[in-house]
Amino acid sequence: MEGLTLYTYFRSSCSYRVRIAMALKGVPYNSEYIHLLEDGGRNWSPEYLTLNPQGLVPMLKDGAVLLTQSLAIIEYLDHTCPQPPLLPSSVQERAYVRSLAQMISSDIQPLNNLQVLEYLRQQLQVPEDEVSEWYRHWTSLGFQAMEKRLSQHDCSGRFSFGDSTTLADICLIPQVFNAARYGCELDAYPLIRGIYDHCMGLEAFQDAAPGNQGDATDHSVCASTD
Amino acid sequence: MEGLTLYTYFRSSCSYRVRIAMALKGVPYNSEYIHLLEDGGRNWSPEYLTLNPQGLVPMLKDGAVLLTQSLAIIEYLDHTCPQPPLLPSSVQERAYVRSLAQMISSDIQPLNNLQVLEYLRQQLQVPEDEVSEWYRHWTSLGFQAMEKRLSQHDCSGRFSFGDSTTLADICLIPQVFNAARYGCELDAYPLIRGIYDHCMGLEAFQDAAPGNQGDATDHSVCASTD
Repeated sequence: MEGLTLYTYFRSSCSYRVRIAMALKGVPYNSEYIHLLEDGGRNWSPEYLTLNPQGLVPMLKDGAVLLTQSLAIIEYLDHTCPQPPLLPSSVQERAYVRSLAQMISSDIQPLNNLQVLEYLRQQLQVPEDEVSEWYRHWTSLGFQAMEKRLSQHDCSGRFSFGDSTTLADICLIPQVFNAARYGCELDAYPLIRGIYDHCMGLEAFQDAAPGNQGDATDHSVCASTD
Repeated sequence: MEGLTLYTYFRSSCSYRVRIAMALKGVPYNSEYIHLLEDGGRNWSPEYLTLNPQGLVPMLKDGAVLLTQSLAIIEYLDHTCPQPPLLPSSVQERAYVRSLAQMISSDIQPLNNLQVLEYLRQQLQVPEDEVSEWYRHWTSLGFQAMEKRLSQHDCSGRFSFGDSTTLADICLIPQVFNAARYGCELDAYPLIRGIYDHCMGLEAFQDAAPGNQGDATDHSVCASTD
């Protein structure tokens, strides 16, 4: 697993997911920083689009292979670097953990990423307070369902499932991180808050956090770019 | 694998995905029809929310286990009923197929489902022509990238990958089906069109199609409910 390059942006929550997985696995990699705001978004440069026609980060380069989509990348890493495993061994539990991850990757993050918020602002002329309300609406809808589902599955409040980090935590923590930036109220989700507090105390989550990346800036008022 | 019950709605593209997988595997199941429009959406009933706090279809009941999120369900089926496999055996190819599936499940479908379109209409008072434009925008952005990625990977134009149906086709075909309903122009995507035409000639895709479900109605003017 030498020679890995991660195309990443510090504030991208999907890049954050892959960074957590890499840190948990202890996999060394080079970072190629793709700024999503400068120059109209360097992810839209012809050079980057040749590599990834979708123009999104993260992308993982492993030798000649270019891997896209954060969950596909993480499952790839989980296969090629099996320790520690990020999915349970039982097929039913694996389906459960994947479903938690997908509640975030399919039902929260896609609605709240930079492209979508910019479409609301530019094309639909939605005022900024309603854009923020949109952000909070989908976050709260997703977190409500996730909190309930966690409570139905005897979640300890330290990890989403069981006693170690899984793909579910890897998706959840970056989403909570961003939700906090958007002023989402988290008091109604004690399990989610507990998992967040616990995981953010772990080295891998800290190492992977936006503020600790080589491309991190102090542009604290930047639009969310998850 | 006896006693499976699929909670489904004929026009739900995510339900359609699971129906295709079930048909390919030849797995018998009972259907529990959850109408997403009648009575304000029967998926929001207290009974259904107790089973699935997210209030979404599909959901698969296997004995006492309730499985949610279409991709997690399909990977579960692929493990419990391995033939025919829906993912390639090589880890790199598996990552590629999953990435194609996720281009749809994370970057097109979430933006165009019923809840989102209704939020645009009701909360943001977006006129109907701009709602349709929104739908076509995200579809076209996703299909452009997917067409390019398929072309970079020697796609035959019969299946997204290789010579048999994979998870990528299972996600793509329902999305093309819905795109056609929304008047999306598909001429710019010859590979995607070819895959759609080929797969729609296969029995499993036909059996799983919205019009062939027990809850299908001729409400052709219904809002999209993928």
